[in-house]
Amino acid sequence: MANTLIFFSYDGTNYSGFQIQPNAVTIQEKIEKALKVLYKEPVRLHGAGRTDAGVHARAQAGTFEAPFAIRSESLPYAINTLLPTDIVVTAAHVVHDDFHARFSASKKHYLYTIDRAKFPQVLKRLYSWHQPESLDLSLLKEAAALFQGTHDFKAFQAAGSDVKETTRTIDQIKVLEEKEAALLKIYFTGSGFLYRMVRLITGTLVRVGRGKLEISAVKEALNGGSPAAAGPTAPAHGLCLENIIYDR
Amino acid sequence: MANTLIFFSYDGTNYSGFQIQPNAVTIQEKIEKALKVLYKEPVRLHGAGRTDAGVHARAQAGTFEAPFAIRSESLPYAINTLLPTDIVVTAAHVVHDDFHARFSASKKHYLYTIDRAKFPQVLKRLYSWHQPESLDLSLLKEAAALFQGTHDFKAFQAAGSDVKETTRTIDQIKVLEEKEAALLKIYFTGSGFLYRMVRLITGTLVRVGRGKLEISAVKEALNGGSPAAAGPTAPAHGLCLENIIYDR
Repeated sequence: MANTLIFFSYDGTNYSGFQIQPNAVTIQEKIEKALKVLYKEPVRLHGAGRTDAGVHARAQAGTFEAPFAIRSESLPYAINTLLPTDIVVTAAHVVHDDFHARFSASKKHYLYTIDRAKFPQVLKRLYSWHQPESLDLSLLKEAAALFQGTHDFKAFQAAGSDVKETTRTIDQIKVLEEKEAALLKIYFTGSGFLYRMVRLITGTLVRVGRGKLEISAVKEALNGGSPAAAGPTAPAHGLCLENIIYDR
Repeated sequence: MANTLIFFSYDGTNYSGFQIQPNAVTIQEKIEKALKVLYKEPVRLHGAGRTDAGVHARAQAGTFEAPFAIRSESLPYAINTLLPTDIVVTAAHVVHDDFHARFSASKKHYLYTIDRAKFPQVLKRLYSWHQPESLDLSLLKEAAALFQGTHDFKAFQAAGSDVKETTRTIDQIKVLEEKEAALLKIYFTGSGFLYRMVRLITGTLVRVGRGKLEISAVKEALNGGSPAAAGPTAPAHGLCLENIIYDR
């Protein structure tokens, strides 16, 4: 038995999210099916985190107990032949027994992509949120800066969440305009995020940029205030889990 | 009746190419269906050119006789509500009666995208050709330069083509490496291309880059020589019709 860490990417378009659930097609299910064929026995994959239905990943991570050894260099190729083309394993590493994809993660990177073209860019439609309205980027960036640091993000989680400790730290929110490509990219780095937090912050930033929400309302919401200033929840298909960082 | 030029983009993944054909779903068919609903009578769309099954377009063009006037500014929105999300009309212009989408075109731009990552980049898999093998880019660029100018491209058309005049002019082939994105982009500009010519040239360039074909063989093929040095035909899904230029 070898505790094995894999990194994998997926196009979330046709999946009901990462985590296995009844009567739905999920990423975890597809990978566990492939692992079962490969190792000829059931193998449980522990993901670094869930992603919602429609959310993509450039580098999601997961650990599993490999029933027998396969060279790390060969393992991605072996699993990929058993996976659909919209899920691709990109790396494998043997790790310490006490290493866990979720609890050992130190940072997560997310990217939210907004399509700023007048009409939806058809080759980017599955991976971006079309927002052609004019945006005040300096206001949007001012609001983004407010979210950096340690705050009570209680207002910025999905309604009905029952997480008790809602204080989180966002290391950085970087807003990058790619004018020629008509894209606005928002990069998030943090140690942990509440459920739908990235999409709620993105929706809030766009609302500020459109002049529909005051900076002062964002400040209040960040001081444990009302969720009225949070959101709307930006659509899932604009979000991509970019990377999981482990200190090893 | 107003002769109308429209520009439109499409994701070719789920279509059997641009041109209407029996027992196949095509772009032209989808747009003509939308125009019929909009104008309440059959409308024929004349495309600037065909694209093969799986080929994409960022800006394809077509003309049609509009049975009645709709403001050019509103027309794209009106048609788009009647189209699937993988076809998007981006502009409309009223043009002279003797203007024809195909015969009035002066230049066409194509882009061929090659994915150079070790494993396929899952969010780019529908829009690029995965070629992880090492490529000698200076050789590839040297070969690309040979294709520029006026040549007999007889060897660089699909087998079985019965076009008699096979001399064409390529204004430019630009090879651009995007290292961080692990992409190789090849831009083609010319007044006209033979059937599958861009994909055959791309396949040839990759073969040269991989060291499997001598530059001298490319030179011979370009002097009306044997098609043995041409190709393979690069896959359709890496190709995108980027733009059609009209001198107006």
